[in-house]
Amino acid sequence: MASVHSSNEDLDTKEMDARSLSSSRHNSQGEPYIHKVGVPPKQKLFKEFMNTVKETFFSDDPLRPFKHQPKSRKLVLGMQAIFPILEWGRDYNLSKFRGDLISGLTIASLCIPQDIGYSKLANLAPQYGLYSSFVPPLIYAVMGSSRDIAIGPVAVVSLLLGTLLQNEIDHTTNPEDYLRLAFTATFFAGITQATLGILRMGFLIDFLSHAAIVGFMGGAAITIALQQLKGFLGIATKNFTKKTDVISVMHSVFGSAHNGWNWQTIVIGASFLTFLMVAKYIGKKNKKFFWVPAIAPLVSVILSTFFVYITHAEKQGVEIVRHIEKGINPPSINQIFFTGDYLAKGFKIGVVAGMIALTEAIAIGRTFAAMKDYQIDGNKEMVAMGTMNIVGSMTSCYVATGSFSRSAVNYMAGCQTAVSNIVMSIVVFLTLEFITPLFKYTPNAILAAIIISAVINLIDFQAAILIWKIDKFDFVACMGAFFGVIFVSVEIGLLIAVSISFAKILLQVTRPRTAILGKIPSTTVYRNIQQYPEATKVPGVMIVRVDSAIYFSNSNYIKERILRLLADEEEQLKAAYRPNIQFLIVEMSPVTDIDTSGIHALEELHRSLQKRDMQLVLANPGPAVIDKLHASHVANLIGEDRIFLTVAEAVSSCSPKLVEEA
Amino acid sequence: MASVHSSNEDLDTKEMDARSLSSSRHNSQGEPYIHKVGVPPKQKLFKEFMNTVKETFFSDDPLRPFKHQPKSRKLVLGMQAIFPILEWGRDYNLSKFRGDLISGLTIASLCIPQDIGYSKLANLAPQYGLYSSFVPPLIYAVMGSSRDIAIGPVAVVSLLLGTLLQNEIDHTTNPEDYLRLAFTATFFAGITQATLGILRMGFLIDFLSHAAIVGFMGGAAITIALQQLKGFLGIATKNFTKKTDVISVMHSVFGSAHNGWNWQTIVIGASFLTFLMVAKYIGKKNKKFFWVPAIAPLVSVILSTFFVYITHAEKQGVEIVRHIEKGINPPSINQIFFTGDYLAKGFKIGVVAGMIALTEAIAIGRTFAAMKDYQIDGNKEMVAMGTMNIVGSMTSCYVATGSFSRSAVNYMAGCQTAVSNIVMSIVVFLTLEFITPLFKYTPNAILAAIIISAVINLIDFQAAILIWKIDKFDFVACMGAFFGVIFVSVEIGLLIAVSISFAKILLQVTRPRTAILGKIPSTTVYRNIQQYPEATKVPGVMIVRVDSAIYFSNSNYIKERILRLLADEEEQLKAAYRPNIQFLIVEMSPVTDIDTSGIHALEELHRSLQKRDMQLVLANPGPAVIDKLHASHVANLIGEDRIFLTVAEAVSSCSPKLVEEA
Repeated sequence: MASVHSSNEDLDTKEMDARSLSSSRHNSQGEPYIHKVGVPPKQKLFKEFMNTVKETFFSDDPLRPFKHQPKSRKLVLGMQAIFPILEWGRDYNLSKFRGDLISGLTIASLCIPQDIGYSKLANLAPQYGLYSSFVPPLIYAVMGSSRDIAIGPVAVVSLLLGTLLQNEIDHTTNPEDYLRLAFTATFFAGITQATLGILRMGFLIDFLSHAAIVGFMGGAAITIALQQLKGFLGIATKNFTKKTDVISVMHSVFGSAHNGWNWQTIVIGASFLTFLMVAKYIGKKNKKFFWVPAIAPLVSVILSTFFVYITHAEKQGVEIVRHIEKGINPPSINQIFFTGDYLAKGFKIGVVAGMIALTEAIAIGRTFAAMKDYQIDGNKEMVAMGTMNIVGSMTSCYVATGSFSRSAVNYMAGCQTAVSNIVMSIVVFLTLEFITPLFKYTPNAILAAIIISAVINLIDFQAAILIWKIDKFDFVACMGAFFGVIFVSVEIGLLIAVSISFAKILLQVTRPRTAILGKIPSTTVYRNIQQYPEATKVPGVMIVRVDSAIYFSNSNYIKERILRLLADEEEQLKAAYRPNIQFLIVEMSPVTDIDTSGIHALEELHRSLQKRDMQLVLANPGPAVIDKLHASHVANLIGEDRIFLTVAEAVSSCSPKLVEEA
Repeated sequence: MASVHSSNEDLDTKEMDARSLSSSRHNSQGEPYIHKVGVPPKQKLFKEFMNTVKETFFSDDPLRPFKHQPKSRKLVLGMQAIFPILEWGRDYNLSKFRGDLISGLTIASLCIPQDIGYSKLANLAPQYGLYSSFVPPLIYAVMGSSRDIAIGPVAVVSLLLGTLLQNEIDHTTNPEDYLRLAFTATFFAGITQATLGILRMGFLIDFLSHAAIVGFMGGAAITIALQQLKGFLGIATKNFTKKTDVISVMHSVFGSAHNGWNWQTIVIGASFLTFLMVAKYIGKKNKKFFWVPAIAPLVSVILSTFFVYITHAEKQGVEIVRHIEKGINPPSINQIFFTGDYLAKGFKIGVVAGMIALTEAIAIGRTFAAMKDYQIDGNKEMVAMGTMNIVGSMTSCYVATGSFSRSAVNYMAGCQTAVSNIVMSIVVFLTLEFITPLFKYTPNAILAAIIISAVINLIDFQAAILIWKIDKFDFVACMGAFFGVIFVSVEIGLLIAVSISFAKILLQVTRPRTAILGKIPSTTVYRNIQQYPEATKVPGVMIVRVDSAIYFSNSNYIKERILRLLADEEEQLKAAYRPNIQFLIVEMSPVTDIDTSGIHALEELHRSLQKRDMQLVLANPGPAVIDKLHASHVANLIGEDRIFLTVAEAVSSCSPKLVEEA
């Protein structure tokens, strides 16, 4: 390799000389050193089509393990594919169970108070949160492929569901239909998730960008925390706004400052919030004490409930839970709206909530899978999530998904498999069967404190700063989603996030980058002269690199952009009394594909240049491009001898002609 | 240049040897030949932002001629920018006028019968077609920048407008409101066009791909031709379906075969259609006779009108035009719906019709501008089109745009400037003032024959075949639009065309291509081994090229795709007892940009590889990428000494390490 560079040090002059190029050409011992651009072997149309379908929908090659297997083995593999528990269950042992038991108990202690609080965000009675932590985790445990995710209700989805449902039915005046619509939405959330998975359309959730999610989550966290001010300050529900934007909420809070706040509630809430934050700090400082913040919520609930029970603070205006239905999930299949107006509404809400729930679950699954280096099958996960929500909707659950905070605790507590979800589920079952009456005296302020301390983690300053540093456009998407959520509503924030993400994609395909290339001294490498200021232009030649596939959405822009760059360059050259440009080399390495509009644009570019006595030269067109250039005969039009393997070869073939004419 | 290749012929072995690579490395005279990847100079945030805005909305740099000019000159330039006639009018002379006069007269003779026919497609009285060929061309002549386009009503937009309006109001039972809605739609079509131009959003029309337009136009042509069977066969309107799909129309045609057809009408229609087709054939065979097909329609109208007048064929059931309002356009500003239900409907129809009209006009403008090598300013064109339709809607015109057939005749007749439109407009004015009563006896069958012979040109078999050859996906879009139009309706066809175009963009950004690279013998060039089967892999190294910017929409796919390629490769190597892969080189030349999700994907890829004792090496990241790699500290994580200018340098730095371990 080294010889390549050492041998052409004679070219190491800042301003390249066309003559030296041409003389170096004659150094070749008459051998052909210009390499032909390869035309890839023709593929059968059907094969090409199948390849596209495969890359789009089956990019993970799900049938690979089935290849070359006997039929019975295929059946077993098929069952294992649907129920991964059959696969990992065979290697399950006591040591793994110890990890799962501890982590399961830990997340159970965290989920019980959270569930009660989150169901309030969805405007549902507290038991529905617990129900949703009983059935869905069991389903997930047999069907899911993540080992670390903790399933159950989560704050953001609860808030979103509560907002969307409240838009249709008021939960205070018509709680029965509200509940039925919640089950309907959950059912369709499950259907949406499962359908995406079965149709292998999982890539659709990739359209919500990381930056938009960071902003959306941060905004939702603040909205949720603000909602908790009601319980935290002891403001009566009738005095509190039903809107979620920061201005309405602050108005409610300060509007009721004179008579609506309850100091006993505030004292209880504030002291336990302090306790929770200290616990969190301890857990953060020393990873060994991860269990401190994990059990702190349950400890707070027990302590505060006992305290209220002793002091009868509820008579001083401290709001308490009062009543949680005892017993496990009643069936709810007959409550789902399968006909009527609410069917369409439930469907719409379900699609939105299902997509968001899925985005969160897949993000969590991928994060922890990357940490432990195992693969998550996105489409399979979606089927598992969908099934669990469909079954959930028939057993009085609302939309469940993977929880960020509980999954992290699960991971740190040393979970090994999805058995930790089963353990958690059993604990929730026991709670529902035996302990719920004990929650009667739990003050709402404690639940508010627990939710606040949980959602604070969703505000990811570090990520926002990193986004700002890396990509300003992403930051706009992030802030758009954030401010949309806190100043307007969750749906609007979501809409902004999706719109900005799409706008970015459209911008990318309509306005691709182009670069003028120069030769890096003492190499045969041509690079962007903005990135490498030492790169020098070749006299009489302009080299442009097009940085995108050329499609109908950008073909006109690219053509006009190249002509504009050419006009600029000629103007400069004229001002400096330098020779005119005679060759336009288009470096096509990044042009991975071209369509009919792109071919037309190239043809028009060629004709425009011809009229100006310039030559169009192409360097390194890729397989798809060279194929289509030949199919459309544009390769002949431009001249096959004007298509080169590298920019260096294109330049060396242009330069002698320049010299002859000079 | 030649020396580069001749000096490393010692490497010309089919299977590369890691030892030879490493030995060639030691040939370097201790000089650093590994070039650093340039980090582009930091741009100010504001400047970067302004650059993006400029490239998106002002990519054509419209203010460029204004630079360094005195104020008075700027005013003149500004006026000339809005009214290009002020610019080209100064050089106007008699010889140009001769060309414009001849071409103007020719397109006038073509447009008069077409206008009368097209207004029927829009379910409007015949004079509205003529009105639309009087005012809009005048406005365009002072504001437009194309020299060849012929303005007036066109078949496809007339059909589209007729279909969309008929969906809202039935033109037979409520012709007054129908007409008012037509003006309202025209008004908003103009507003849409002008707004797109002023906001410089012209790139939006690029989202309708060439292939989709070909299919849509072909389908519309067939639909229009089928509609003409009514007039051509003399079927009464009450016996004819109002739907436009081929099945309903054929049902109507054959359902009325027994009693509904009129043989006199068929004889007249068929003989003149033959005449028109022969004229067309003559014009095609010899370009000198372009005027034969151009005046044939007018000749047919005169002859057939005279014939019917003499023979009183209208008494034999031959349908005639009967009445065309005499006189020029009455004002219609008071007829536009500015309030009420129809406002929103008119707006919706106007947006769709305006966009389609614009797409057609811009395509025509670009085609002829490319032929004569002048520039069309897309955004300025849109403002001109918009103004002309806004003024048109106030003077009893319906949506006008550039006509394919008449523009081609205009070009061939030797038009020089937009003055040919003025000439045509004057002829139409004279027709409206003096000649319309003479059209009373013109048989409808002649108009049908003229329309059929005109729209047949819109069916572009050659283009469809070329699309099939070049890009199969484009062909699907083309056929989708085509069959959508002929089997369902114009709107559905349009919807299909737009959806498939969008799906293609989404597919492009979600599933980018990747390629495994190999070294092309006796060069230092690494290329796709599928395109260049002679390229050889480097033992212990896998080189992957990612062929797209890495964004949130594809970052996960790219990461997983690379890991899958790696797994495939390792499996093969294992089967062949070859050394394992130790270095994964990602060639990033085509990766023009990366966002936060992409950075995370790279980070995860790096960690995954680390766990497998492999090294991630990057080759030639572009300016945006290297900038973000540094901003996010991922460059440090991977190691700055693992980022190279070229694949060759990356390989040569990996190989000695391979040898040491071997």
